[in-house]
Amino acid sequence: MSLDEFGIIRRHFVRNAAVRDDVVAGIGDDAALLRVPAGHELVVCTDTLVAGRHFPATTAPAAIGYKALAVNLSDLAAMGADPAWVTLALTLPGYDEAWMSEFMQGFFRLADSCNVALVGGDTTRGPLSITVQAQGFVPSGQALMRHGAQPGDHVYVTGTLGDAGLALYLAEQADAELRQRLDYPEPRLQAGRALRGLASSAIDISDGLLADLGHLLEADRLGASIETDLLPRSAAFENAIRQAGADAESLAQELPLSAGDDYEICFTARAADEAAVMATFAPLDCGCTRIGVIEQQPGIRCLRANAIAYLPAFTGYNHFGDPDG
Amino acid sequence: MSLDEFGIIRRHFVRNAAVRDDVVAGIGDDAALLRVPAGHELVVCTDTLVAGRHFPATTAPAAIGYKALAVNLSDLAAMGADPAWVTLALTLPGYDEAWMSEFMQGFFRLADSCNVALVGGDTTRGPLSITVQAQGFVPSGQALMRHGAQPGDHVYVTGTLGDAGLALYLAEQADAELRQRLDYPEPRLQAGRALRGLASSAIDISDGLLADLGHLLEADRLGASIETDLLPRSAAFENAIRQAGADAESLAQELPLSAGDDYEICFTARAADEAAVMATFAPLDCGCTRIGVIEQQPGIRCLRANAIAYLPAFTGYNHFGDPDG
Repeated sequence: MSLDEFGIIRRHFVRNAAVRDDVVAGIGDDAALLRVPAGHELVVCTDTLVAGRHFPATTAPAAIGYKALAVNLSDLAAMGADPAWVTLALTLPGYDEAWMSEFMQGFFRLADSCNVALVGGDTTRGPLSITVQAQGFVPSGQALMRHGAQPGDHVYVTGTLGDAGLALYLAEQADAELRQRLDYPEPRLQAGRALRGLASSAIDISDGLLADLGHLLEADRLGASIETDLLPRSAAFENAIRQAGADAESLAQELPLSAGDDYEICFTARAADEAAVMATFAPLDCGCTRIGVIEQQPGIRCLRANAIAYLPAFTGYNHFGDPDG
Repeated sequence: MSLDEFGIIRRHFVRNAAVRDDVVAGIGDDAALLRVPAGHELVVCTDTLVAGRHFPATTAPAAIGYKALAVNLSDLAAMGADPAWVTLALTLPGYDEAWMSEFMQGFFRLADSCNVALVGGDTTRGPLSITVQAQGFVPSGQALMRHGAQPGDHVYVTGTLGDAGLALYLAEQADAELRQRLDYPEPRLQAGRALRGLASSAIDISDGLLADLGHLLEADRLGASIETDLLPRSAAFENAIRQAGADAESLAQELPLSAGDDYEICFTARAADEAAVMATFAPLDCGCTRIGVIEQQPGIRCLRANAIAYLPAFTGYNHFGDPDG
């Protein structure tokens, strides 16, 4: 069967589920009408996933739908925002009822768990590509920004690093847990909210720790030292690495530093706030690890436990500094 | 030369022009931070243009950039909204400095003329496709919606109809004025704002008058009679039609009813407000024409001056009614 654009939107985008009461009008008019609460700023981001570039064509439709939303919610999380509304612009090579249902199931699975309403959409014919635009809000003046770090601030990351990169590397050999981390990343929304007023700067890790920490440091023209032995690695990561043979050591070092798609938050906080940071994360599932310190000297210096400077193999992302200082 | 994603965004998206003072933080963080004025609702829409589908591959890059924004601002206009901020998700087959500069020149030409700030963006590699998401605001409760019309209300359209359709039909033979209407449609923002509190319902005409008036009528399960001889046609349209030979008569009838891409506003107002509508449009460039009346009976009836029911050839868009009543 075939549906026109309006049919697709009516069938797959519009739902009878209870909607947020700040949605005055959702899908079905020229635009959505929304209410931003008083005393809040609107937080807006957009990200596109292109088939064959951001995901293999064989990816489960549910994972594509989930992840197209997740990467955007991760940006909101890194701003400390409460997510509220999203629009979905979907370009499809053709209409496939089963594919579309699974895609939206993955999308709504995450949307519902985060109380996010789909308020607008567009469907067009063309090579598979998904653009989500996400909106949330944050109490005025309390957004977490990339700038704000100071020398002496501690550098932290949520969760664990390198899992998604290892899943990509191992492909079919990756176990279910690593695969889950690649296909269904959890945006760290609770962590972002909890860090309001506590983190001095924050960014989400989509391109790898070195790249994204690099962006954060650029904002204030600062540098950092990272203790690579402190980088949080999951049990699934350690297990899989042990079976990687000759490459094990370099993978274990490189992936947490350079692999993308983890969607954790990298943030900084004043050294004096370390206990407060730990207390903040105690009730949260994702955990949080101190991995280094902000320094005046630009560049990212990666140190091993033996304090010998460690030069990462992949430094292409480090735009402006000399990694071995 | 080649630029990475961040380079493209820095070079082409970020500008030193004065920004709106409701942009707390624009491009350069995980998300933009924006201030919606008190007492207003946020208005949000999104539209994608795909090369080869929404525009011929040979279209001037400036026209693509302009139009990708224009089709979204037209949706905001039809809501009576003041446009404020947009995000731009651009999928490019490769980086072409000249193409990109012209594209952004067209985009910013319209953005600047409407006081719209580009606050976020994403660039990815893939088949050419552009998704713009536009945001504006409207005093709470004053948005123009698709619903709200009542039997007896007059039906109006802004500007003229069929120009873009005729430009597409004539292709290389279209004169500059028709071509301009196709490539650089003017979103009717002033008209939308002026209609707050006056129009009983409104929609923008992107898919053709019959299709979009159909959507408006669906919202209240109403119908309408349209006097096809009243449909506003431009001088350029009339001139070009005179040269169309055998097809002239059917083109002159069909295009204003069924051709898309005009981006005028179709709206309704109480019959008693006719003088107020005309007075509202007196100072506006685009003009406004009364073309029919809302009726209880579903369907769109197209009447000629001789009052004989006229059956449009293209009725595929009319989802729910019998056009010759």
